[in-house]
Amino acid sequence: MSAPHDPPATRRRGRRRAGEETRTALLSAARSAFAERGYDGATIRHIAERAGVDPAMVNHWFGSKDALFTASLDIPLDPAVVFPEVLRGDPDQLGERLVTRFLTIWDATGGGPMASLIRSVAAHDAAARMLREFVTRVILARVVATLGPDQADLRASLVGSQLIGLGMARYVVKLEPLASADHATVAAAVAPTIQRYLTGPLT
Amino acid sequence: MSAPHDPPATRRRGRRRAGEETRTALLSAARSAFAERGYDGATIRHIAERAGVDPAMVNHWFGSKDALFTASLDIPLDPAVVFPEVLRGDPDQLGERLVTRFLTIWDATGGGPMASLIRSVAAHDAAARMLREFVTRVILARVVATLGPDQADLRASLVGSQLIGLGMARYVVKLEPLASADHATVAAAVAPTIQRYLTGPLT
Repeated sequence: MSAPHDPPATRRRGRRRAGEETRTALLSAARSAFAERGYDGATIRHIAERAGVDPAMVNHWFGSKDALFTASLDIPLDPAVVFPEVLRGDPDQLGERLVTRFLTIWDATGGGPMASLIRSVAAHDAAARMLREFVTRVILARVVATLGPDQADLRASLVGSQLIGLGMARYVVKLEPLASADHATVAAAVAPTIQRYLTGPLT
Repeated sequence: MSAPHDPPATRRRGRRRAGEETRTALLSAARSAFAERGYDGATIRHIAERAGVDPAMVNHWFGSKDALFTASLDIPLDPAVVFPEVLRGDPDQLGERLVTRFLTIWDATGGGPMASLIRSVAAHDAAARMLREFVTRVILARVVATLGPDQADLRASLVGSQLIGLGMARYVVKLEPLASADHATVAAAVAPTIQRYLTGPLT
């Protein structure tokens, strides 16, 4: 879409300043690059080239490759902000903190972005791959890394399954009473599941 | 779409025999009727009228309103066959039987129908409503009815959340190792969740 190596500033569209245009170009280039090459294969340098901007603009506008990846999926959280909060404190309360944080983030959006995300994932293999990499690399690898390597991949995918299902049930299918239940009720019911998937016996 | 009260046999398209044509007409009428009126509001008589066939054709082709509803959602199970099997036996093993049965049914399809279902549900409120009614009325009301009324609705929606999430993670997002794990591994990990949602403490 955007020309690679479009040199210093594009003549076609006037000088591309560090504005919304740069951010939008980076998001568009990131979506294509992550979908084609996966999380590891899509480098910041390559994404910046596709967008026709300096690689430093990724850090300027997003702060990190993780954050750019998250933004390109339209997920309303910044891992660099959320994770220190969730991981801090008693490991036995990790499930409860994760569920509560999940509800707080998605409730604030009314569920629209979750419906969009699920729509993309169901319709496009590339979007499914992006969500898969987001769940396993950005989110859960970090959580599980704090807990040790015992069946880490299986634990991560189990946590992913319950959180995706909670999002789908609460915001898309709107299964009652789960859709309208307050955070304390949902956390009391679901947090022990997440906690067991993270730290409990799986067999 | 099809004319209601199209008398005895439609002249327009030749004699409509009890064949695939009748089945297809019933499915199409059922999808519209369930989406517009919900499960309770869409009567067999009304669906048959929309399809221009005799109401007895519903039982002839599908066996029950439940089975017609399930078929109209393109869900590859027949509740009348599945439920007696799942509900039979030790109530403490219900979670395991439910998870194993879920995996057997969906693995047989390779996940295509699950992706189609999720795609419809994310894109259309009417499809979301149909899945909601399917989960709460056809599937879980029966399971929970065998276990008593304590927080039955919350339990049903929690089970729904984990099963929807398992389907999405295994067949659509293809989160590994959950996507390729054998039934025993998945059941060992997920069955205790389903069992607690059905019969365990939620607070």
